[in-house]
Amino acid sequence: MTETRHVDEDLDILKSRLMAMGALAEQRMCAAVDALVAADRETLRQVRGGDQALNDLQLEIDDRCFTLLALQHPVAVDLRFIVTTTKVTVDLERIGDQAVNIAEAADRYLDHRPVKPLIDLPRMSTVAQGMLVTALEAFLSQNSALAGSVLAMDDRLDDLKNQVFRDVLTYILGDRKTIEPGIDLILISRHLERIGDHATNIAEDAIFLADARDVRHGNRAIR
Amino acid sequence: MTETRHVDEDLDILKSRLMAMGALAEQRMCAAVDALVAADRETLRQVRGGDQALNDLQLEIDDRCFTLLALQHPVAVDLRFIVTTTKVTVDLERIGDQAVNIAEAADRYLDHRPVKPLIDLPRMSTVAQGMLVTALEAFLSQNSALAGSVLAMDDRLDDLKNQVFRDVLTYILGDRKTIEPGIDLILISRHLERIGDHATNIAEDAIFLADARDVRHGNRAIR
Repeated sequence: MTETRHVDEDLDILKSRLMAMGALAEQRMCAAVDALVAADRETLRQVRGGDQALNDLQLEIDDRCFTLLALQHPVAVDLRFIVTTTKVTVDLERIGDQAVNIAEAADRYLDHRPVKPLIDLPRMSTVAQGMLVTALEAFLSQNSALAGSVLAMDDRLDDLKNQVFRDVLTYILGDRKTIEPGIDLILISRHLERIGDHATNIAEDAIFLADARDVRHGNRAIR
Repeated sequence: MTETRHVDEDLDILKSRLMAMGALAEQRMCAAVDALVAADRETLRQVRGGDQALNDLQLEIDDRCFTLLALQHPVAVDLRFIVTTTKVTVDLERIGDQAVNIAEAADRYLDHRPVKPLIDLPRMSTVAQGMLVTALEAFLSQNSALAGSVLAMDDRLDDLKNQVFRDVLTYILGDRKTIEPGIDLILISRHLERIGDHATNIAEDAIFLADARDVRHGNRAIR
């Protein structure tokens, strides 16, 4: 009984650290896109240089997982939760990497005259943010219905990405001076798409956890 | 003693299945790039539609991992190997996804007049293939020096990707009819870069496994 309570306490700590890591990843993604829209070079610089805290959280959480596995031999859903958490931290860390990629492209973009009003990229950021928050909540509460809603949101993100592509291409065809900044806008849309992919991975992990079934290779389009 | 031998046997099976999955991922990536160069639509069609075998292997290997963890309570390096294998399968499965992405972009590319002779993309494919093979070998043999060589190869891949970008941009600036196929070449270079990222992930997992230290967030550039 004592040991069971001990596992539960450790799991609660694990969950709270994972929430902290998710919040940080979300914050960095939003900061990068907001700074692009506001032409805020200083925030872009901070996003580009500030990946360490997220990396440290990943290492800390993974350590907790391996210690739990080695010392407490969890089984069933606890086992799956702990192993799967080591995958979720990978996705959260990569979202941070994408925030850096966005900040770098944004910084290059701001060296040129603006190609167009930025409407779809902030929309993509909002959708990706919603996906991330929802996926993590679904994972932590093991709610597969909630996780399923993330998969639907990914289609919306793809639509927006395709819209950015067509839109930018029109500008590029009209004025070749927009090629370089235009390609950066396309790249940013693809970084946001990848953030959506990472959120989708987390949602699929949540479904795996909740239903002991694996939907990773169902009827979804290939990423 | 009997149980120890049993774990070893299961681990050997796990390793051989992982090798099979790696070989399949490698084959699909190479097929996609070769088919682009050869303008071989039929092979591109096969790559686009043939992701199931890789997905099935991932599910099978993951099942083996969870069964081993639940029933045999492995510790130390065996524990780390099994948990980390569930991450390696993610990377191998995503390499298959990237092969599909390459095949899709190649198919679009072949709808247009060729932009340029394709030299750097096959080079990127060769480097990425070498990274993948080396990373998997390093992981299976827990050889951190070998894994370290993969990290160095990733720089070469980045250089080639940047060269493709500059090169294609020159063509685009000279002839706007090359914009659409040119962007597809850039996208293919980025898909190959991501395959290199996945191989790098596996190499880092190999180092983690070999040295019980984690180099994931050392001095490397952010992907």
